[in-house]
Amino acid sequence: MSSTDMKPGIDPNTMSIIVTKGSLDWAYPPFILSTTAAAMGLDVTMFFTFYGLPLLMKDLSLQVSSLGNPAMKMPMMGMHMGMPNIVSAIPGVDAAASKMMKNLIKKKGVASIPELRDLAVEADVRMIACQMTLDLFEYSKDDMIEGIEIGGAATYIEVATQSHINLFI
Amino acid sequence: MSSTDMKPGIDPNTMSIIVTKGSLDWAYPPFILSTTAAAMGLDVTMFFTFYGLPLLMKDLSLQVSSLGNPAMKMPMMGMHMGMPNIVSAIPGVDAAASKMMKNLIKKKGVASIPELRDLAVEADVRMIACQMTLDLFEYSKDDMIEGIEIGGAATYIEVATQSHINLFI
Amino acid sequence: MSSTDMKPGIDPNTMSIIVTKGSLDWAYPPFILSTTAAAMGLDVTMFFTFYGLPLLMKDLSLQVSSLGNPAMKMPMMGMHMGMPNIVSAIPGVDAAASKMMKNLIKKKGVASIPELRDLAVEADVRMIACQMTLDLFEYSKDDMIEGIEIGGAATYIEVATQSHINLFI
Repeated sequence: MSSTDMKPGIDPNTMSIIVTKGSLDWAYPPFILSTTAAAMGLDVTMFFTFYGLPLLMKDLSLQVSSLGNPAMKMPMMGMHMGMPNIVSAIPGVDAAASKMMKNLIKKKGVASIPELRDLAVEADVRMIACQMTLDLFEYSKDDMIEGIEIGGAATYIEVATQSHINLFI
Repeated sequence: MSSTDMKPGIDPNTMSIIVTKGSLDWAYPPFILSTTAAAMGLDVTMFFTFYGLPLLMKDLSLQVSSLGNPAMKMPMMGMHMGMPNIVSAIPGVDAAASKMMKNLIKKKGVASIPELRDLAVEADVRMIACQMTLDLFEYSKDDMIEGIEIGGAATYIEVATQSHINLFI
Repeated sequence: MSSTDMKPGIDPNTMSIIVTKGSLDWAYPPFILSTTAAAMGLDVTMFFTFYGLPLLMKDLSLQVSSLGNPAMKMPMMGMHMGMPNIVSAIPGVDAAASKMMKNLIKKKGVASIPELRDLAVEADVRMIACQMTLDLFEYSKDDMIEGIEIGGAATYIEVATQSHINLFI
């Protein structure tokens, strides 16, 4: 076997993240991981799908701050309620919990989701919106921030075959 | 170091998915990803465990359509209610949400879970049922579809060491 | 291209797990996978963050057994209620479900979470507590078991670039 027959392996400094959750708490892990990885020099791709798709909307600050009425932005109220986010489903608890979390994050100096998303954009994190979810939720690309791509599951699989770290969040 | 000492790396066209959730919404991501990947020529293995195990049951259409009474098929009602699926826990919301989601999917032309599972079987996706979960839920292999394997966490780890993309859903 | 220019690829016998959930049911997958992998000879690193961080607390048995009052240990009640664990949010269901699950696990001979964590420690699984979550929850390292490290997202990314299997649970 000559050395040219050897597969060199995937560049370890590559990462993809499937972002499936859009509640205030679960929006943090993908953005913290992607911005940190990008700052360390990794090539990062985020694929936004299911309940994670709204995180690409222009009016993100509103969307995230509207946990008190999570169905407001979503044509599929029931589907949205299927989110692993009981906070958004128990009347009264919601607004208080959201406020508590935001205050705590503010007090502790953690960046907000809109700030982290801006950082990701500036760091050239590649962002792909799931075509099927766009259709299901009846969103248009105009509702989304500039610079994103539209793609399907095949687009994600192609990215993942070329990325070393592949996470489903 | 001779070239024969070099590890050639894992074939990037390989994927494993741990399937841990069985609600109507969360059943989609693993089946969409596995069928898409298989269609693109990847070798795919799905490991069904925890709340994802029921997705291998013969009467899947019933199981998935019975979100209105999710405990019906599960000896561990409380454990099932721990699922990240608030839809199945709020009386009245459940049936309506399930119907809404099914109608939307139908309207939009997305395949149903039983259809996607059939596609996965036809595409030779390897399906492994978790032995421990089978025991915990008191299911037998006869309750499951034909052609699956039974295995434990060690079986999964072995698969994952040989797969490039490894997702936990 | 000489053989010394070839990247040998990552050792497939390496695994990292991001542990983000701390409820009684979702605590199982990371510990079962990590102890199984370690027993098979893999190098395993667990990164405990978000709702998974409390799994490193000294009084784990209490923490896990206190599902009836999950906010007890958590300064962020609302955030905790955001966990994908409806069991801990519906009064009355909680204690019964927790008891049911524990009895079932006991009956079936599955190890408890404290037992699995001890196994992981003995198997030299590397455990890292997320600095940011420690700060947010106002925990100190003294609340955690011996032998763990404290690190941030950058620590995790570095581990992941060197691990073959990378899971987000």
